[in-house]
Amino acid sequence: RASTMERAIEAEEYLTHAPVSLLRTGIDTEDTMRAKFEKVIRNAQDSICSAIEEIDGKKFHQDAWTRPGGGGGISRVLQDGNVWEKAGVNVSVVYGSMPPEAYRAATGKAEVLTKGADAGRVPFFAAGISSVMHPRNPHCPTMHFNYRYFETEEWNGIPGQWWFGGGTDITPCYVVEEDMKHFHGTYKQVCDRHDPAYYPKFKKWCDEYFRTRALRAGHAVRIRKMIKHRGETRGLGGIFFDDLNDKDPETILKFSTDAVNHVVPAYCPIVQKHMNDAFTPEEKQWQQVRRGRYVEFNLVYDRGTTFGLKTGGRIESILMSMPLTASWLYDHQPAAGSKEAELLDATRNARNWV
Amino acid sequence: RASTMERAIEAEEYLTHAPVSLLRTGIDTEDTMRAKFEKVIRNAQDSICSAIEEIDGKKFHQDAWTRPGGGGGISRVLQDGNVWEKAGVNVSVVYGSMPPEAYRAATGKAEVLTKGADAGRVPFFAAGISSVMHPRNPHCPTMHFNYRYFETEEWNGIPGQWWFGGGTDITPCYVVEEDMKHFHGTYKQVCDRHDPAYYPKFKKWCDEYFRTRALRAGHAVRIRKMIKHRGETRGLGGIFFDDLNDKDPETILKFSTDAVNHVVPAYCPIVQKHMNDAFTPEEKQWQQVRRGRYVEFNLVYDRGTTFGLKTGGRIESILMSMPLTASWLYDHQPAAGSKEAELLDATRNARNWV
Repeated sequence: RASTMERAIEAEEYLTHAPVSLLRTGIDTEDTMRAKFEKVIRNAQDSICSAIEEIDGKKFHQDAWTRPGGGGGISRVLQDGNVWEKAGVNVSVVYGSMPPEAYRAATGKAEVLTKGADAGRVPFFAAGISSVMHPRNPHCPTMHFNYRYFETEEWNGIPGQWWFGGGTDITPCYVVEEDMKHFHGTYKQVCDRHDPAYYPKFKKWCDEYFRTRALRAGHAVRIRKMIKHRGETRGLGGIFFDDLNDKDPETILKFSTDAVNHVVPAYCPIVQKHMNDAFTPEEKQWQQVRRGRYVEFNLVYDRGTTFGLKTGGRIESILMSMPLTASWLYDHQPAAGSKEAELLDATRNARNWV
Repeated sequence: RASTMERAIEAEEYLTHAPVSLLRTGIDTEDTMRAKFEKVIRNAQDSICSAIEEIDGKKFHQDAWTRPGGGGGISRVLQDGNVWEKAGVNVSVVYGSMPPEAYRAATGKAEVLTKGADAGRVPFFAAGISSVMHPRNPHCPTMHFNYRYFETEEWNGIPGQWWFGGGTDITPCYVVEEDMKHFHGTYKQVCDRHDPAYYPKFKKWCDEYFRTRALRAGHAVRIRKMIKHRGETRGLGGIFFDDLNDKDPETILKFSTDAVNHVVPAYCPIVQKHMNDAFTPEEKQWQQVRRGRYVEFNLVYDRGTTFGLKTGGRIESILMSMPLTASWLYDHQPAAGSKEAELLDATRNARNWV
């Protein structure tokens, strides 16, 4: 197994400019969902980064890279900005073959690993945009989004699979009811335009951070994605969906596009409202403690991080989600009735914001 | 599986004073290795904390706790000290039954999980002392040690097991050859007193952070414990051993006792030498980046952390190893030829210090 892992970890090559496309010439032609999805996420990366730069006043740094195994990515990071300590927006298009253990992590499939060598590797295509933004001011929330499209080819008698996944979620240090109404309300409108069943379902999915893999695994496999050992969710929710393939791909693409295109209107007004708020050293310290929790979640439980590390993804792109700074205070307990205790309560008991 | 996990996570009760013993009356009588080992680690906790307090000038805070499932612990933390940002020394004595998945994580046993309820749980006893100390000054190294004794009762036809494990290792931000000679030399002397084969074996084991589970699993299972995705080890080594049960228990106890009793002479002189060294903001930042790596290692790979979280250990005691502060800079690369690059090289290519 060690040798399989090592083979999967290939050094990437850097490009001086972002390529027009990360797709495979002659394979991912413009009529394929792979090509259509790449266009959506490349456009989203451009428009979201522009909006952030306009608020922050500092520019993103860009790294474009390819992997010998196939595919590549465009990572953009704004570090040590005026408004954001760290904001990363990463696009990647990756294809090749992955170890069965990575396939299992990605799909929840419980099939026994095929012993042996390359015969057991699973051909796949994955394209996605992912982002985490950590502002300086403790009254501005951290925000995460990720939208992705995935295909596998037929493998060991299991037919080729395709699905969409994604979501946008928010992680404030303090509960501000009207901000939450704005954020969740924006995504409710997006969902309602496409399917009235989406919002309640995807809101709940995000709150509980459950992932139902029943459709493809043939049986229900649910993994709770909250910070299990603390009994807290990472943040105050948003929407989350995965394994979405129960409508035709074009219809789901329209929904995914609408969702990624509403990151800016859902999030940026909240940051603009609070970016100049006064704050105390104690509030800054509370933010640092919450950042520590964010790190715990991402390194211990997050499926995207785990998958990325297992498939030999580009480390710096995967760990772009880490905050610039974090803190761990031993046994830190907010005083009863404090604003900090209110936030903790909201991470332990999901609320309906809209 | 979810319900098994939840049942394993029990709230602890706090005691106003550390109990004379955490053992079971009438079961862990003073002739048992369980009782002898508890005495060693309780004494070590007292003497090590005293030595640290004398250097730092600040006192440890103590929490003593018991678990309804059996056992308890004494956690001591010195936070925001004069010399150490955070230093924790934790003793725990835990018994009860653990889920098979925790047994597998602890022993590397690959047996198929028994489906169903409590019939599948494995009776165990575990006692250990563990510690991480993160100094303020970037020229003072972080140090970790852990010494433990483990027993399981017969389970599913597998006979009861016992073994010792442990080690002391050092994680500086900069390579200071003579400090490393002192630290590693101290542990070479300790090892040589007990078995001339120990030092080369346990030094290598720590450097490579391999864990051989061949003896109990019946076949060789080796898991590389370095920061796989970065190609770096956590620090600059020390000694590490696990699954040690190839001599009689009394003989191994003598070695473990000698090793834990040499934490102070191996580590403290290095801290005292550098605690007042001048440092630049850049050196402080480098320390913060190395602390970020420490967090990655502990949350993604460390067997002790994983085992603790799976068996419903006390969260704050397990995560005492987290630094007070850490930082993640995007794609941070030290300049070629710098002292920072020298440290990275030493984490990638193991050296013989003595």
